[in-house]
Amino acid sequence: MPLTEYFKEIRREIDKTLGTLLPPENTYPAELHEAMRYSVFAGGKRLRPMLAISACDVIGGDRKAVFPFASALELVHTYTLIHDDLPALDNDDLRRGQPTSHKKFGESTAIMAGDALLTLAFEVMTNRSLFNNVSAETLIDVTSQTALAIGSTGTIGGQVVDLAKEEAEPDLAALEYIHTHKTGKLITVSVTGGATLAGAEKDQIDALTQYGKNIGLAFQIVDDILDVVGDEKSLGKDIGSDTAKGKMTYPSVLGMDESRKLAARLTDKALQSLEMFGDDSTPLADIAKYIIARNF
Amino acid sequence: MPLTEYFKEIRREIDKTLGTLLPPENTYPAELHEAMRYSVFAGGKRLRPMLAISACDVIGGDRKAVFPFASALELVHTYTLIHDDLPALDNDDLRRGQPTSHKKFGESTAIMAGDALLTLAFEVMTNRSLFNNVSAETLIDVTSQTALAIGSTGTIGGQVVDLAKEEAEPDLAALEYIHTHKTGKLITVSVTGGATLAGAEKDQIDALTQYGKNIGLAFQIVDDILDVVGDEKSLGKDIGSDTAKGKMTYPSVLGMDESRKLAARLTDKALQSLEMFGDDSTPLADIAKYIIARNF
Repeated sequence: MPLTEYFKEIRREIDKTLGTLLPPENTYPAELHEAMRYSVFAGGKRLRPMLAISACDVIGGDRKAVFPFASALELVHTYTLIHDDLPALDNDDLRRGQPTSHKKFGESTAIMAGDALLTLAFEVMTNRSLFNNVSAETLIDVTSQTALAIGSTGTIGGQVVDLAKEEAEPDLAALEYIHTHKTGKLITVSVTGGATLAGAEKDQIDALTQYGKNIGLAFQIVDDILDVVGDEKSLGKDIGSDTAKGKMTYPSVLGMDESRKLAARLTDKALQSLEMFGDDSTPLADIAKYIIARNF
Repeated sequence: MPLTEYFKEIRREIDKTLGTLLPPENTYPAELHEAMRYSVFAGGKRLRPMLAISACDVIGGDRKAVFPFASALELVHTYTLIHDDLPALDNDDLRRGQPTSHKKFGESTAIMAGDALLTLAFEVMTNRSLFNNVSAETLIDVTSQTALAIGSTGTIGGQVVDLAKEEAEPDLAALEYIHTHKTGKLITVSVTGGATLAGAEKDQIDALTQYGKNIGLAFQIVDDILDVVGDEKSLGKDIGSDTAKGKMTYPSVLGMDESRKLAARLTDKALQSLEMFGDDSTPLADIAKYIIARNF
């Protein structure tokens, strides 16, 4: 993220909110709570919370009404990382330069820490006392959209197909399914959910949905590219791990050049869909530009 | 369950609702959807849905407003079974007489099928179009209570401590924590959630909370007893598996006689808390009596 004061401030507030929402480490069962906090505070970029708050700002809404939702998105994201890293799935030892949850706490605790983070996310999203001036109708609508985005036809569906397609023949349709689902749907609902809580109108939601879909796919294409050409140290994970696992990636299906061009085209489309918002959309535009610019 | 026509009818309706709510097996990603359906339709007793509907009936509410919630409870329960059975947790090969999810579909699909069932449960609970005449306030309140009951200080907390206490010295406080959390909280919220959706008053909820807590603990004590003296075939799982794993159980801590007496005392207390409801509470009383009577 371009760490301007704008994003730094959001990040501080998100980390503070996450610290309050997560159960204290010294409360029973302590190891579970320690594992939940360990992964949430392992140095994530907080991309999804930043998107939710920036979407709130583009609508001119009250940030207080969005911070708990933005934090819940990070809880969901962290659960997906913990479960994806498990030996039965991607079998990764490192995440953000640190041992993954199952490496540090053992497999059973990692599975349950993931389960508990997912459950906590829904507990937060449905805890009305956390949401200033948001109607129950709006809150339940946003929670429902989030559940749909991360279920068997969303995030989890993408991960299942990703695993199933390891060592498979290159297949652009399958690759698109994987990326739009595994990463794209949660990113999109981060933007639209933040905007809905801020009181957005339908045409605004429609434009932000296009923005979210385009940056979501661009983000994942860039991730694939970085797995080939990135800098191990700054990524905090092994380079070449996609190739080693026989993962289907954009560079492997389209080639490196076409992948870069596609990511650039998607970013342009994302920026276009922000035009109706004028200058208020600078933070969202900055995020789109950051996604394409990181490290290549 | 005493399979009177009353319970048979609920069971038919629950299975029908579950069939509609679960993604069709032939939809993408098919293996995931197959795994979700496999475990949900592996022959569960539907205890939690029966409790929710019987609680609705004791209040005199509209069952249509409760069936989707009751079905979501079964989705949650099934997710906990799939994850508990995993090699890293209880490592069970059989459940209800059939291969467990990871035995049939592999570990990664089992983990994700569990995740997807949990997520679907929240999608169902927050899908307003499924709930006739229930206000958004009530629905979000019940969803929030459910999330709290099954999180790190509820179901998951109980399971974590259960695993941590394998081979530990007998400890009644730890044992009570395990059972009131691992099983008790979801059972209690099944009763109170069903009653809340049916429009229950606070004193009714209080009485039903006591009922739920008492049958929840009684249920688990009986489960422990059946693991020692039960009939393998009718249970559909291996007898003696708790002992083999060094699990802390009521018979191992209190002895068989005291465990039976405690289960009977808890059942009596549960029946007492139904007194204010008169004859309308017959189904809930039947469930309490069934819990204590099954197989010993």
